Amino acid sequence: MKKVTNAPSDAAPVVILVRPQIAENIGMVARAMMNCGLGSLRLVAPREDHVCAKAIAASSGAAEVLEQAEVYPTLAEAVADRTFVLATTARRREMAKPVLSPQRAIQALRQHVGRTAILFGAERTGLENDEVVIADALVEIPLNPQHSSLNLSQAVLIMGYEWFQAGLGQDNSRLEYGDSQPATKIELEAFFTHLETELIARGYFRFADKRARMKRNLRNIFARAGLTASEIKTLHSVVTDLVRKVD
Amino acid sequence: MKKVTNAPSDAAPVVILVRPQIAENIGMVARAMMNCGLGSLRLVAPREDHVCAKAIAASSGAAEVLEQAEVYPTLAEAVADRTFVLATTARRREMAKPVLSPQRAIQALRQHVGRTAILFGAERTGLENDEVVIADALVEIPLNPQHSSLNLSQAVLIMGYEWFQAGLGQDNSRLEYGDSQPATKIELEAFFTHLETELIARGYFRFADKRARMKRNLRNIFARAGLTASEIKTLHSVVTDLVRKVD
Repeated sequence: MKKVTNAPSDAAPVVILVRPQIAENIGMVARAMMNCGLGSLRLVAPREDHVCAKAIAASSGAAEVLEQAEVYPTLAEAVADRTFVLATTARRREMAKPVLSPQRAIQALRQHVGRTAILFGAERTGLENDEVVIADALVEIPLNPQHSSLNLSQAVLIMGYEWFQAGLGQDNSRLEYGDSQPATKIELEAFFTHLETELIARGYFRFADKRARMKRNLRNIFARAGLTASEIKTLHSVVTDLVRKVD
Repeated sequence: MKKVTNAPSDAAPVVILVRPQIAENIGMVARAMMNCGLGSLRLVAPREDHVCAKAIAASSGAAEVLEQAEVYPTLAEAVADRTFVLATTARRREMAKPVLSPQRAIQALRQHVGRTAILFGAERTGLENDEVVIADALVEIPLNPQHSSLNLSQAVLIMGYEWFQAGLGQDNSRLEYGDSQPATKIELEAFFTHLETELIARGYFRFADKRARMKRNLRNIFARAGLTASEIKTLHSVVTDLVRKVD
């Protein structure tokens, strides 16, 4: 599997599905893992074959995650080499454990120096109390309390998404400009002058007491739009064409 | 649909699926929406019937979202009453638009005073450029660049999850104590004294130069564990039982 630059596979958590019941779900988990740059899957006593045709089809291109998955008879064996384990759970447990949001849990996991894993229980029943107890912390995904049952692959996706996001180290929001550059203020000013000159010639600003406000409102429309240099050229052409005499 | 307290439905975004191809996906979208407290679904020219048996089964208890969904022939009609629209996209577009992370996009959506929507394109093809252009901002979900194609319901879940989380207004992480309370320091100290007394009686601290470090290490083990009052009682019993003479 190709490594994602921000996600060295030795630091990435292993995903452990405990008694998964449905092959398609295992496939969809593989897909969600691959989406998030996670490659290591362990299965504890799966009911169906994780490399059957249904699982492969549902993995939608992530077959290699399924092919490299390891099967264990018990959870104890599946976590034997791990040093930090998170357990996802929808239910309250009568035990003393930190219960973390996905974001906090991933912070703890990323801060841990060692080999980590995230546990997910069977589709309907979740994890048993005896399974939860081995975890360092529980993870509770905040959801609509009236409808909190998540599909298995959806739970894996949320954890993987938080893990991947935390690795980016920055919010990737930006303004894209396509093939152009943001307009400079002088380009913007030149356009305003062009537009206002043509409007003045046509009496648009004829009421002296309203003139300043009308200009300001007009400028504000274009100032707010975050125009590119090529969009300014387009607008010049629009004004030029609009004022052209029709023969 | 029952309202979630932190999510008044009039402020919640409408989810708009543009040309969805597969009934099961529409059902899974309804489930993911319900998970996140979102109730309003609009469909633009769906290929399959959104209330067919396959869709209802896939919705896993969120049939009411499907039954109340509105179908529109065109995207323009589906967004006509909206004042702020996000478009999710996996591809770069050659147009000047803000491209936001899911978190930033949801912040912008929650700050907007008006009627909002989030657009999701068809399964394989996504949104057309002519459709993207009507959006106020694009949303790019940060994912493994080698495998970034998300299932439709997974994309809806990520946006819904961010929306729901933002509404909580706080991280819900905590230490749960089951049916007990956190131990007080004096309870902890009493246990240390008990343990150390028994160990001293058995010569555990016999090397004077190591005594302070050994005590510190021992105390640290229990101090770090975040013990509850009832766990302290358990530990007292353990020590008491361990030192009992076997007849």
